[in-house]
Amino acid sequence: MDVNILLFPDFETLDAFGPVEVLGHVSDYVPRYVSPGGGIVHSRQKLPVMTEALGDADTNGILLVPGGQGTRLLVTDPEFIKMLGNAAERSAFCLTVCTGSALLARTSLLNGRRATSNKRAFDWVRGLNSAVHWAEHARWVSDGKYYTSSGVSAGMDMALGFIADQFGTRRAQDIARHIEYIWNSDQTADPFSQVKKV
Amino acid sequence: MDVNILLFPDFETLDAFGPVEVLGHVSDYVPRYVSPGGGIVHSRQKLPVMTEALGDADTNGILLVPGGQGTRLLVTDPEFIKMLGNAAERSAFCLTVCTGSALLARTSLLNGRRATSNKRAFDWVRGLNSAVHWAEHARWVSDGKYYTSSGVSAGMDMALGFIADQFGTRRAQDIARHIEYIWNSDQTADPFSQVKKV
Repeated sequence: MDVNILLFPDFETLDAFGPVEVLGHVSDYVPRYVSPGGGIVHSRQKLPVMTEALGDADTNGILLVPGGQGTRLLVTDPEFIKMLGNAAERSAFCLTVCTGSALLARTSLLNGRRATSNKRAFDWVRGLNSAVHWAEHARWVSDGKYYTSSGVSAGMDMALGFIADQFGTRRAQDIARHIEYIWNSDQTADPFSQVKKV
Repeated sequence: MDVNILLFPDFETLDAFGPVEVLGHVSDYVPRYVSPGGGIVHSRQKLPVMTEALGDADTNGILLVPGGQGTRLLVTDPEFIKMLGNAAERSAFCLTVCTGSALLARTSLLNGRRATSNKRAFDWVRGLNSAVHWAEHARWVSDGKYYTSSGVSAGMDMALGFIADQFGTRRAQDIARHIEYIWNSDQTADPFSQVKKV
């Protein structure tokens, strides 16, 4: 099964590559790095990644959508949102990290569903689509085939939660141990939901 | 100050980009992605990264060396080890993640110093250079300008520890909060040192 990691200018590096590290330990999952137009895409941390065009990808597998500064522009880009909507609809599972859920919310595919996002950007994200049931206090949320996580590092916890749902908790724990990651496995434990108040 | 991230075929994705995410929050640090020959380098998770040649880089700044499967070949590549040794010697600070310390150990620059590494690969790493004081139980270790971490995810904790040493603990905590990362800030707490026994 392909894992299509959808990159765009100014995506947040760890949003994408934390989950890639976790999902990469499932040998049946084949990571593919895609972007709307293909070619080199730079992350917010100036990382140049060579991508394939999303149009050339088989999008029936898993779609992973990072967040980051680049989402601020893309939420107002109807072509991008349409392309994302088509890919997310065809996907078996769609996982977003941080403000990746802002992009997905703009497709309407999250309408009536529970979702979460980065806690610093929460008011902005919520304002983009009030038909989504936004969870203010959650490390990650799953609703059907859609998984959405809180900011940046929460994507790794979500990816392990996704593995647990697909293959059992022991498999997720094995991967966490392999990468010496201390998994925050309780999706309701969200120390950063109070971030504005500290 | 440049942060030179030294990439090579089959480096472990998160070894490099976890610390990049952390260090990228210091605006004075400029990330540069380098490799011995420049051009596209693929991580173990098939991520194609465009790199500059290490020879063209200013290596007076911070040098970050990930680990991964690719280190198994490189420890026996005298040209690579010489190039790494020169860059590490010139660097203001040299940070390794996971089996990146195996590469650095081969340069002799860790001789007589404390260092650590991935806990699954520990016996292999230790066998490469017994003149290093290998710490079996440590999330990360610093000795002078050299920082070495345990496996994969430990690199993020080390990077935050490095920030704390440079700019104070509050700065490290701010970055951790910004990326919603639950920092394992005690470098002596290493739940994975027992990994072979579980």
